Amino acid sequence: MTKIIEFETDPSRYRHWRVEYDGAVATLFMDVDEAGGLYEGYELKLNSYDLGVDIELADIVQRMRFEHPEIGAVVMRSGKDNVFCAGANIRMLGGAKHDHKVNFCKFTNETRNTYEAAANDSGQQYICAIKGSCAGGGYELALACNHIILTDDGSSNVSLPEVPLLAVLPGTGGLTRVSDKRKIRRDRADIFCSTEEGVRGKRALDWGLVDELVANSKFDEVVGARAREFADHSKTSASKNGSKYAKKNGNEKGIVLEPLQRIIGEDGSLTYSTVEIAIDRNGGIATIEISAPNSSAPGDLKELHGEGAQSWMLRAARELDDAMLHLRFNETELGLLIFKTSGDAASVLAHEKFMLDNRDDWLCNEILQYWKRILKRIDLTSRSLVALVEPGSCFAGTLAEILFAVDRTYMAEGEFEGDNRPIAKIGLSEVNFGLYPMSNDLTRLETRFLGAPDNVEAARASIGDMLEAGEADELGLITYALDDIDWEDDVRVFLEERASYSPDALTGMEANLRFAGPETMETRIFGRLTAWQNWIFQRPNAVGEEGALQRYGSGIRGKYDKRRV
Amino acid sequence: MTKIIEFETDPSRYRHWRVEYDGAVATLFMDVDEAGGLYEGYELKLNSYDLGVDIELADIVQRMRFEHPEIGAVVMRSGKDNVFCAGANIRMLGGAKHDHKVNFCKFTNETRNTYEAAANDSGQQYICAIKGSCAGGGYELALACNHIILTDDGSSNVSLPEVPLLAVLPGTGGLTRVSDKRKIRRDRADIFCSTEEGVRGKRALDWGLVDELVANSKFDEVVGARAREFADHSKTSASKNGSKYAKKNGNEKGIVLEPLQRIIGEDGSLTYSTVEIAIDRNGGIATIEISAPNSSAPGDLKELHGEGAQSWMLRAARELDDAMLHLRFNETELGLLIFKTSGDAASVLAHEKFMLDNRDDWLCNEILQYWKRILKRIDLTSRSLVALVEPGSCFAGTLAEILFAVDRTYMAEGEFEGDNRPIAKIGLSEVNFGLYPMSNDLTRLETRFLGAPDNVEAARASIGDMLEAGEADELGLITYALDDIDWEDDVRVFLEERASYSPDALTGMEANLRFAGPETMETRIFGRLTAWQNWIFQRPNAVGEEGALQRYGSGIRGKYDKRRV
Repeated sequence: MTKIIEFETDPSRYRHWRVEYDGAVATLFMDVDEAGGLYEGYELKLNSYDLGVDIELADIVQRMRFEHPEIGAVVMRSGKDNVFCAGANIRMLGGAKHDHKVNFCKFTNETRNTYEAAANDSGQQYICAIKGSCAGGGYELALACNHIILTDDGSSNVSLPEVPLLAVLPGTGGLTRVSDKRKIRRDRADIFCSTEEGVRGKRALDWGLVDELVANSKFDEVVGARAREFADHSKTSASKNGSKYAKKNGNEKGIVLEPLQRIIGEDGSLTYSTVEIAIDRNGGIATIEISAPNSSAPGDLKELHGEGAQSWMLRAARELDDAMLHLRFNETELGLLIFKTSGDAASVLAHEKFMLDNRDDWLCNEILQYWKRILKRIDLTSRSLVALVEPGSCFAGTLAEILFAVDRTYMAEGEFEGDNRPIAKIGLSEVNFGLYPMSNDLTRLETRFLGAPDNVEAARASIGDMLEAGEADELGLITYALDDIDWEDDVRVFLEERASYSPDALTGMEANLRFAGPETMETRIFGRLTAWQNWIFQRPNAVGEEGALQRYGSGIRGKYDKRRV
Repeated sequence: MTKIIEFETDPSRYRHWRVEYDGAVATLFMDVDEAGGLYEGYELKLNSYDLGVDIELADIVQRMRFEHPEIGAVVMRSGKDNVFCAGANIRMLGGAKHDHKVNFCKFTNETRNTYEAAANDSGQQYICAIKGSCAGGGYELALACNHIILTDDGSSNVSLPEVPLLAVLPGTGGLTRVSDKRKIRRDRADIFCSTEEGVRGKRALDWGLVDELVANSKFDEVVGARAREFADHSKTSASKNGSKYAKKNGNEKGIVLEPLQRIIGEDGSLTYSTVEIAIDRNGGIATIEISAPNSSAPGDLKELHGEGAQSWMLRAARELDDAMLHLRFNETELGLLIFKTSGDAASVLAHEKFMLDNRDDWLCNEILQYWKRILKRIDLTSRSLVALVEPGSCFAGTLAEILFAVDRTYMAEGEFEGDNRPIAKIGLSEVNFGLYPMSNDLTRLETRFLGAPDNVEAARASIGDMLEAGEADELGLITYALDDIDWEDDVRVFLEERASYSPDALTGMEANLRFAGPETMETRIFGRLTAWQNWIFQRPNAVGEEGALQRYGSGIRGKYDKRRV
């Protein structure tokens, strides 16, 4: 698996999904092209999916928000007759390297979380309409929806057959959503998750595995009615959790997410319009530099909507998102990501302020919500993350939030000899205090100052000031303030030292230190479930020659070492 | 590692610890015998420890509660001059099998949790007094104490060098307690946990890694004064968290925990006085049967204290605890544990009622607290757990709690042909509604009925009734009610099916399904940290031939595959 995986796509290139729009309701048909696998060696039978299928779904979900703000309800259903979805393709998983398996699960989890959050963030509710077998990753697609309808035809069923069939765990949040979202009684969950053939009909409803059971003859009718209800509900009522998505009336006109402009250099470097990635292969480092806008903020909403995907905050978001995914999947040996910024902090804050001032506009809301997701994507990236705050940088507001997402921040203190760029400063804004919660549902500053809320308040009081290194250090916002005598050596020593450590131990350490404080379904998925799955993905009982993943389809069950750990 | 590990010990056999008693203060000197390792092939240098050292510590902590109720403060310090403790022995870890490593970490974690909880449960506070190097597992011993004092001698230090030095994680809750108990700012935690040489002096205090920094010349004096203060505090004030440990005045007289009576059969079966374990090696099953008391409950406190460790509730607790540890470490291929009971439920409830009626007596309190710990030990046992409620059984009160700890419960319904024992019934009591919280700080019934508090109340209303299978099923307290026609086949099919699944996948599934609801430091340690550590313990970067654990002590660093996962 050495070819570059592309995360950009668009509807003209979809091979696995169809989308139909009807007023405020969109219907996604999952109709996977068997021959359309991302790699050789497997066929995507029975609506099973690989990363390529999920990249399309992620694109659909994203475009639903930006290109189709009029949509209030999204129905997910199968385009095939007798199967909803058979889950992740097992031959693909059996053949994939460990790091691809893990990254694949993480990306699919992020996509599930993204549409699960769409009800609260964007007033778009997802309904899963199940006919046929809905197994494993298929049922996990359903679990992330807001409402699950199952047809009562005597055979359609939901299942999580991973444990009995494949000796792995459901990898896309299945166990967590069964226990914590749907609150299935644990002995029933135990039965459900260890029963290959799954559960159908009344039992699925009684146990809470689905929300609604509908006679086959009335299926389309009920699904349609329910979709319209949900769409109406999205328009007329605030979200139950009180999130502040902009109210929409269904007459919004979307923008177009044009293709990104990206140049890949021979050394693997990437150049977008606002983001640049430099690669240091020997050092195992990628340096991500985000540039401040060089044009002024939109004058009014009309101008913003006219700019569309070209407006700086959205453009930078899309480019950064693409860059992070590229680094995760295509540059697995770069263990250290350095974040830098350059340009005018005032300009960053001005663009951001426009969004904040117009949060009841759906597009401004979507742009801010998108930054929330990207910042989470950074938190969840299994690389050592460091920010270098240098002269001429612009870590302010949304970009300053990156300082609290990374593991450490080094900040240049005072004048640097021979450097005529402005002294390094950072600046906070309202966005650092609530708009961008982490997976643990706290802000990054609340997490940083866990148990010390006074420190959060002291930081908040600095809004409006641009802070030099000494002040930032005093407020606990950076790790080290270094003058130009120490800067180069200290940073170099850190980078070399970090590169010398075991990547696995660092992944485990960072996953444990980044998410202090309360746990949520999301931290549980990425912290607990992922860790167990990573372990199981290494164990001979799953991936050994006689393991269940390898033997899948051969008609022979896995042979297991019975020692319990 | 095939010899049987014994978990019973007593002070006359200690090789690694000394305990001195002085009024309400006890001092534990860790003074590990280099030659006293549990296995061949390593020396326990620099106060490093293996399971044998920890078994002694667990014994000390347990006896402190039952044999020394007069103690209010326990000081943990080193019996050696220049080192506090170097942590878990690395050669031992390097040579141990995966399942032993994992079980070792779990047991040491349980011991840390046990003395960490002693302040709230038993009014015994632990103080760690550090002189010399306190590294890795050594600092984790300290982190679980209520108060950490470090000497300021220019060299004594605390550290978690696992990641940089050994390519594994601190395995005894270090990362979790750094982030969530001591709330160290995450960039500082990142530095601390990736710095081999650790932190000393003022920085350790400023960062919150220790509670008190004391000049070397005043060290003993301050430690002594602090211990007396903590002991006084234990006597005079309720615990901060409002737990209801029995108030003590320091004049309590302990009981003696006499050696357990245990017979091991040739087939590995175990017979205690109230607990029997039958082994089905082909089926991979151990059946644990607990017998109701056959004598009446103590008439008064004098009688209870006279019986001491022979009183049924304490005896059964000690035997069950020993049995669980034996199964975990010495019977790793028995993947399925069946719990049964036999005898008179009224007698179980009578003995329990005596404890409840006398909860302000320190011994009754300790016995109930001990059951809390054992039930947690069951929750955390990585085996499939099932309860069979048969005619003649006595799952009532404390024993009924086992029904809610296991993954599934099968209950016999009505008369069984040819079986003249009483019809199977279960009965709840007050203990099922608050006294025995799980690691997630909910009761097992609250966890079972997450999101459905009415079901908890309905169960509570049944206190006083003995419920037949139909009623128990109606209340959601069991998984299946089976009559004598279905019983044998259904149970057999389940046992065979379960035995056919991958033990690893079952471990991961059960760890994800058992602890729904809120997360705590404990669930985070056992759910998140353990899972990541298990993964890392499998990775070549740690345990491969060129991995850091294998190369430790060779002078050559580990060679790492740099791919990040």
